[in-house]
Amino acid sequence: MSLPFDDHPREECGIIGVFAPREDVARMAFFGLFALQHRGQEAAGIAVADGQSMSLYKNVGLVTQVFRPHTLDELKGHYAIGHTRYSTTGSPAIRNAQPFMIETMNGPLALAHNGNLVNSAELRQRLLTEGVGLSSSSDTEVMTMMLARSPGKNWTERIRACMKDWRGAYSLVIMTRECVYAVRDPWGFRPLSVGLLPNGGYAAASETGALRTLGCEAVRDVNPGEVVTLSKHALVVTQALKPARPEAKCVFEFVYFARPDHVWDGLAVHQVRQRLGESLADSFTDSRIEADVIIPVPDSSVPAAIGFARVSGIPYNDGFVKNRYVGRTFIEPTDSLRKRGVALKFNVINENVLGKRVVMIDDSIVRGNTMGPMIRLLRNAGAKEVHVAITCPPIKHPCFMGVDMGTYENLIAHKRTVDEIRAHIGADSLTFLSLEGMMRAVGRSDGYCQACFIGQYPIGVDVLSAKTGFEKSTK
Amino acid sequence: MSLPFDDHPREECGIIGVFAPREDVARMAFFGLFALQHRGQEAAGIAVADGQSMSLYKNVGLVTQVFRPHTLDELKGHYAIGHTRYSTTGSPAIRNAQPFMIETMNGPLALAHNGNLVNSAELRQRLLTEGVGLSSSSDTEVMTMMLARSPGKNWTERIRACMKDWRGAYSLVIMTRECVYAVRDPWGFRPLSVGLLPNGGYAAASETGALRTLGCEAVRDVNPGEVVTLSKHALVVTQALKPARPEAKCVFEFVYFARPDHVWDGLAVHQVRQRLGESLADSFTDSRIEADVIIPVPDSSVPAAIGFARVSGIPYNDGFVKNRYVGRTFIEPTDSLRKRGVALKFNVINENVLGKRVVMIDDSIVRGNTMGPMIRLLRNAGAKEVHVAITCPPIKHPCFMGVDMGTYENLIAHKRTVDEIRAHIGADSLTFLSLEGMMRAVGRSDGYCQACFIGQYPIGVDVLSAKTGFEKSTK
Amino acid sequence: MSLPFDDHPREECGIIGVFAPREDVARMAFFGLFALQHRGQEAAGIAVADGQSMSLYKNVGLVTQVFRPHTLDELKGHYAIGHTRYSTTGSPAIRNAQPFMIETMNGPLALAHNGNLVNSAELRQRLLTEGVGLSSSSDTEVMTMMLARSPGKNWTERIRACMKDWRGAYSLVIMTRECVYAVRDPWGFRPLSVGLLPNGGYAAASETGALRTLGCEAVRDVNPGEVVTLSKHALVVTQALKPARPEAKCVFEFVYFARPDHVWDGLAVHQVRQRLGESLADSFTDSRIEADVIIPVPDSSVPAAIGFARVSGIPYNDGFVKNRYVGRTFIEPTDSLRKRGVALKFNVINENVLGKRVVMIDDSIVRGNTMGPMIRLLRNAGAKEVHVAITCPPIKHPCFMGVDMGTYENLIAHKRTVDEIRAHIGADSLTFLSLEGMMRAVGRSDGYCQACFIGQYPIGVDVLSAKTGFEKSTK
Amino acid sequence: MSLPFDDHPREECGIIGVFAPREDVARMAFFGLFALQHRGQEAAGIAVADGQSMSLYKNVGLVTQVFRPHTLDELKGHYAIGHTRYSTTGSPAIRNAQPFMIETMNGPLALAHNGNLVNSAELRQRLLTEGVGLSSSSDTEVMTMMLARSPGKNWTERIRACMKDWRGAYSLVIMTRECVYAVRDPWGFRPLSVGLLPNGGYAAASETGALRTLGCEAVRDVNPGEVVTLSKHALVVTQALKPARPEAKCVFEFVYFARPDHVWDGLAVHQVRQRLGESLADSFTDSRIEADVIIPVPDSSVPAAIGFARVSGIPYNDGFVKNRYVGRTFIEPTDSLRKRGVALKFNVINENVLGKRVVMIDDSIVRGNTMGPMIRLLRNAGAKEVHVAITCPPIKHPCFMGVDMGTYENLIAHKRTVDEIRAHIGADSLTFLSLEGMMRAVGRSDGYCQACFIGQYPIGVDVLSAKTGFEKSTK
Repeated sequence: MSLPFDDHPREECGIIGVFAPREDVARMAFFGLFALQHRGQEAAGIAVADGQSMSLYKNVGLVTQVFRPHTLDELKGHYAIGHTRYSTTGSPAIRNAQPFMIETMNGPLALAHNGNLVNSAELRQRLLTEGVGLSSSSDTEVMTMMLARSPGKNWTERIRACMKDWRGAYSLVIMTRECVYAVRDPWGFRPLSVGLLPNGGYAAASETGALRTLGCEAVRDVNPGEVVTLSKHALVVTQALKPARPEAKCVFEFVYFARPDHVWDGLAVHQVRQRLGESLADSFTDSRIEADVIIPVPDSSVPAAIGFARVSGIPYNDGFVKNRYVGRTFIEPTDSLRKRGVALKFNVINENVLGKRVVMIDDSIVRGNTMGPMIRLLRNAGAKEVHVAITCPPIKHPCFMGVDMGTYENLIAHKRTVDEIRAHIGADSLTFLSLEGMMRAVGRSDGYCQACFIGQYPIGVDVLSAKTGFEKSTK
Repeated sequence: MSLPFDDHPREECGIIGVFAPREDVARMAFFGLFALQHRGQEAAGIAVADGQSMSLYKNVGLVTQVFRPHTLDELKGHYAIGHTRYSTTGSPAIRNAQPFMIETMNGPLALAHNGNLVNSAELRQRLLTEGVGLSSSSDTEVMTMMLARSPGKNWTERIRACMKDWRGAYSLVIMTRECVYAVRDPWGFRPLSVGLLPNGGYAAASETGALRTLGCEAVRDVNPGEVVTLSKHALVVTQALKPARPEAKCVFEFVYFARPDHVWDGLAVHQVRQRLGESLADSFTDSRIEADVIIPVPDSSVPAAIGFARVSGIPYNDGFVKNRYVGRTFIEPTDSLRKRGVALKFNVINENVLGKRVVMIDDSIVRGNTMGPMIRLLRNAGAKEVHVAITCPPIKHPCFMGVDMGTYENLIAHKRTVDEIRAHIGADSLTFLSLEGMMRAVGRSDGYCQACFIGQYPIGVDVLSAKTGFEKSTK
Repeated sequence: MSLPFDDHPREECGIIGVFAPREDVARMAFFGLFALQHRGQEAAGIAVADGQSMSLYKNVGLVTQVFRPHTLDELKGHYAIGHTRYSTTGSPAIRNAQPFMIETMNGPLALAHNGNLVNSAELRQRLLTEGVGLSSSSDTEVMTMMLARSPGKNWTERIRACMKDWRGAYSLVIMTRECVYAVRDPWGFRPLSVGLLPNGGYAAASETGALRTLGCEAVRDVNPGEVVTLSKHALVVTQALKPARPEAKCVFEFVYFARPDHVWDGLAVHQVRQRLGESLADSFTDSRIEADVIIPVPDSSVPAAIGFARVSGIPYNDGFVKNRYVGRTFIEPTDSLRKRGVALKFNVINENVLGKRVVMIDDSIVRGNTMGPMIRLLRNAGAKEVHVAITCPPIKHPCFMGVDMGTYENLIAHKRTVDEIRAHIGADSLTFLSLEGMMRAVGRSDGYCQACFIGQYPIGVDVLSAKTGFEKSTK
Repeated sequence: MSLPFDDHPREECGIIGVFAPREDVARMAFFGLFALQHRGQEAAGIAVADGQSMSLYKNVGLVTQVFRPHTLDELKGHYAIGHTRYSTTGSPAIRNAQPFMIETMNGPLALAHNGNLVNSAELRQRLLTEGVGLSSSSDTEVMTMMLARSPGKNWTERIRACMKDWRGAYSLVIMTRECVYAVRDPWGFRPLSVGLLPNGGYAAASETGALRTLGCEAVRDVNPGEVVTLSKHALVVTQALKPARPEAKCVFEFVYFARPDHVWDGLAVHQVRQRLGESLADSFTDSRIEADVIIPVPDSSVPAAIGFARVSGIPYNDGFVKNRYVGRTFIEPTDSLRKRGVALKFNVINENVLGKRVVMIDDSIVRGNTMGPMIRLLRNAGAKEVHVAITCPPIKHPCFMGVDMGTYENLIAHKRTVDEIRAHIGADSLTFLSLEGMMRAVGRSDGYCQACFIGQYPIGVDVLSAKTGFEKSTK
């Protein structure tokens, strides 16, 4: 039931790495993953190493469902990596759960991955031709197998050698018997940060919020092209590959993915979202539309709505109540409920919109299938006008770097003008933030991937034949 | 893990009743319970009747976990009642799950209950003495067994006869082979409303938001002392008992329990919460404290913070990010994480509080064990001052009418002054809304139970010997 | 899948009672139930009492599936009763699981039952009329509720008072706070024995084999009409009601139900089964049929086949291999496998039957749906002739005392002659042991119920309107 | 609980392969595995291919627990292989469950294995050195990965190339997109047979009993060194490697492993077991011991006891009742029950042994820990003398070819004479069948592995350093 009522891009996963000499490292990883749960709810796993051997536990479900005291208790060691996986419908869930763990000629190795390689089909074919059997459709297994056969006299060299072949988005945590490596692709697509743990040791995580949950201080990004080594000796930073010029960080971490307490590329996400709202208010005001109340689509659009209200002077208020328990259910609504669709997830707070001209703020429109019903909910509750304002430009192109935007066929903005979309959803007006406005709010002029808005991919992608990670995994 | 990080009163349950001649009534009940999930997460159940026989399915878990397509498919009929149960630690969960279903001399009967009888020990003893065996510690079973032996030539009379004996809080849905009855005690402690379904039929629910999720129109309260009959013939309202004078509706439905889209006693909850914030801002301003930002403790205090900000002129902003996936976990934090306690549930958005004088709005303080850690989080994030403002008066007395406030021993305000509490939690100032301020914001001068604030119970309760429903069920 | 490949009467349950002052009483009950598992595989439960309070755990599944270390660890006390329940398709399993536990005016009470009351509809109606609600369709709940309102100054008196009203089969274990009572109806339908535990204390069980598994010495039957009290004071035997004249013990405990190590009515079951085979061999020899090998249908007919072979002089051998893992499966065979039906459960040992005249021994024919396929298996394996010999007379009437024989409609011998049955199953000859031959092998001339063979019920049963326990529970 | 009460060698697994053009192939594989359940109860899996793609489902548990209708329904195709896995305590069950499925440069491949390679450590090291990562400790994964990189222009050639490197026991079913291969090592250690399905198509299985359950006709062994191809074109037999001279078939399939309806090496297992008993009776008679009754240890020794009784003229009877529901339980017995140990699994039928000189037949003594308690049970039941007769010689050496005999340390016959063992178990006499007697009963003079009796391994095994498959998998 979750899908039809949600219209956001989907992130592939969250990753965590820990070296904790004086703590229960598995529980540290657990609470780190717990803080990254919003990046993936399908499966979770933790691998640990104690200098000698390595153990792994992973399963389908939320982090709190997968791990029980007795499963965590069996994961002893000082090093850990963990992964929480986004739900791709229909995929063979348990086989694609991460981390992947293998034995290599250089000892055991575990790996967890956030991103998507655009050349994985080619790399996969190369491995097969070299006589390596592959047991999943995951590009993560491809990466693991490449590391197993990578030349080089130490793991940093072996990782570097593979990085030269990997094209696409990859933020990785890699664990050997006595080391955790945090690795980020030269384009810097997906986030990865490291920090110092208060009791000694280090942690790496997809978001700084997870690091702060663990008590980390002195947090820094793993920069594009870097390999950061977390070991008992030190935190060692190696520039394994030169950063791409320009870099191609994902702007959607600001717009939607990251939890608002994340600091992405040195910028506080909540504040960027407020500025996106402020910037959007400017555009909106230019169009001379008048309104009585600003309401966010909860929860992601709250900061932008706060910023919008502040600049526009129009009061901020809640317009929707979101059912906090919306999760996966297998129960189909009855016909009469199906017609009301989105109402199972959102109810309107009538008194806050009755007789009012409402501006509804949302972060993005992907397929465009939930905005219409939400607008109808507002009108049924007595809203006089419903204006929609979106904190990013229209999404016209799929992502091949690890975000599920859908395909060309189901992106509503691919073949429709803004006014056609407005008519389709039934809004009185529809305002998208411009690319320039968005980047101005972010405060960076370059270094960001804008492919989903303008179709210029930072890495050569044969768009006609390329597959997103999501199509593959539903095989 | 959920308990130590949460400090709110706890509601016992949500109930739903449906007569739907042209719909799959079990699925209607399912989605109704789904919208009441916030009122209880431990167990859920649905009973249906088809005019001939009755079926029941209930189990431990969230509504979406308890019901699967095949379990719902076996629940055929036109009448349904449902229940979602609040989690009382340690109780024998499945045996206390509701609805209760029995056969009586007048045919099968099912019942679901929100509330707590203060004379259940006495009624229980009476039943035992009369030779009735009881298989649970629940006052709901007591009510069911009393109905089974109640005199009267029809169910309305039998229910009325029992109501005379029942003292305390009870909002009930009762189902026979061909009828659903919605019943509310004469004091009106707990909410219950009915509405017309769009495709014909009627529904009853603890909250109007659930009725609206089902598409209900023409919603009205079941008034204190009323029995409302939902049948194929009509919606019949019977004033079974005279309403108590004064009534004793629970003010905490406004303060905390109800979802903000609920209309309680004719008043929109979100708007009352805004006014609670406004009223609190007035008190606060009187104390001449200056501040830079108003932040809510998410999610319940958001409307009050909006209202507070509007009146005080101090800007509203998010200060905390709440982990949306906080649920029951059996994993104990490591020592270093335990010290950071509440940080596993909340992270501060540093940039929004750094260097600022913060007013943190919360709805209530019960045990007082989470406020201190949250204030420390804010100070660690650089807040210059932390002022706490609470949208109700200090809670000094336990509830015996179905809300888990804790006992005298663990209510922090029972033996401490406001300033002692302030010192205990480490705030720069602590403001409670006064009883008068609270009732003024509600907009009613009487008809509400204020026992937890002032200790005057609307029904004679031998406080020294009485037990709350929560102590009993942990037996 | 289990049903179509099995054609035996079905027993309702096994019960156990323990007073063990120096042992973990729940684990004693567990291993006792474990030894009674063959009497019921659907559900299992154990209730314990410690002199003060009482605890219960029951669930659907085999004994080893229902109980885990942590569930047993919570069952502390010195007294225990347990129950293992036979699988009646379609019944609401968990609600009918036993023991039943209730609170009464005389303290908590738990009860487990093997048998079936023939007047339960009447007793049930009486309770309902008296204003008692009933939450299951089980006659066990009826018994429990009657005990809750039974007059008498102690439990022995109360039990005796109820026994006067109970008509039918009941072997019971009843537990109060500080006592276990073992109760057997005056007809003695179903077995129940008691014994002394080696470390002090006593146990009661449906079969003496279970008592011996617990190490019991000095085992004796609970005689018809007796109440035996197991307490810290002593083992007290009370003749609560006079035994019926004649008694009506179930002869099928010898023929099929009991494990061969049971001693029923003072007679060793394995030896009686050998004698049944010997007696059958005499009948068979009279008919001058010649044969080369005697094979049993495993496992119940092995002792009879041994006895048959000994008397007839024809060699005994295995003819079938039984799949030991046949249990409940939800997988339907393919069409080609369905045709081979019983072959999924039994394979023939070809070499032992090839070219031979085979006598196949079985204990009974109920519906007559598996014998035909088994004979075909033998013929396909090359058996020259297949003679069938059955160790009891044709079953022509249903049982109303707790055994599932099926109804008149599905009893093959109800309207068919022996020769018609022989033709239906395709045997070369079919020999049933005569009633006289059976009783001679048992070694008792009276005291046994023969209703299923001759239709004379030991208690007045209105056969046309009566229901077996099995029809009821599938409601 | 299962282990302490059982003292048999343990088999690793059962395998099945099916090509069924007109049947639901997954259900065919399911019922085939169902008939092989006795060869492994820990995990089960089925992979199917439909000419295009391949699907796999495997999990921990019995075959009937692992597969549900919806899991089987998703396995569509015409080709299937399946596996049921023996329980090795402590191993990471799900990761070692079979079949293994991978993608190779020549398309997808699935494999299931019964046996153990003695050179797997060396092969494993070779793969790692060649840059192949391995994700389990299983030699089956090693075989799968070797196939993925094996040269050859078709799968038969690739399999043959690998067979040259594989030393040890392997009966395999291998599936490609449109073929199933049944492969047996040149020594012929473990069984594997093929047959024609009645509706078209072919099946392969570890035991002929499973083939007959599926209705197979024209069954033949896959001979040592053969690869048999099951495809839509034909059943093709290829002698891939020359059979070893001499072959080394496992004699324990006769003694204990196989179900008695299996035909192993052209010999009917039940008949060989009878002859083992007959041969043992000859040895026994030579020692001039007199006895009154022959009893088997159920179930495996029944045929031998029948044969023994026939030759010795001493009557055969049941002496033990075995609890049919003995399975895995996590409940520890109480102290008093622990002392009675084996009594939880077996009860004696007192009347059959009281005052008698008993000969107890068993198939083998491995650790020697259950025989003593069983003899005590018999003596407690009144047996005058207890003579033990074993249908194979003393087991003095571990097996490295896929059977868990234990290690030198725990084999009771490794350092003890027959008389020391007799004294240890407390028997009046102890007779082992001689090697010659055993082979005479089998009816073959060579071609069988006798390593566990005499220590001469058919393949060079460095006994001091070699590991059995069981040690490995508990890593």
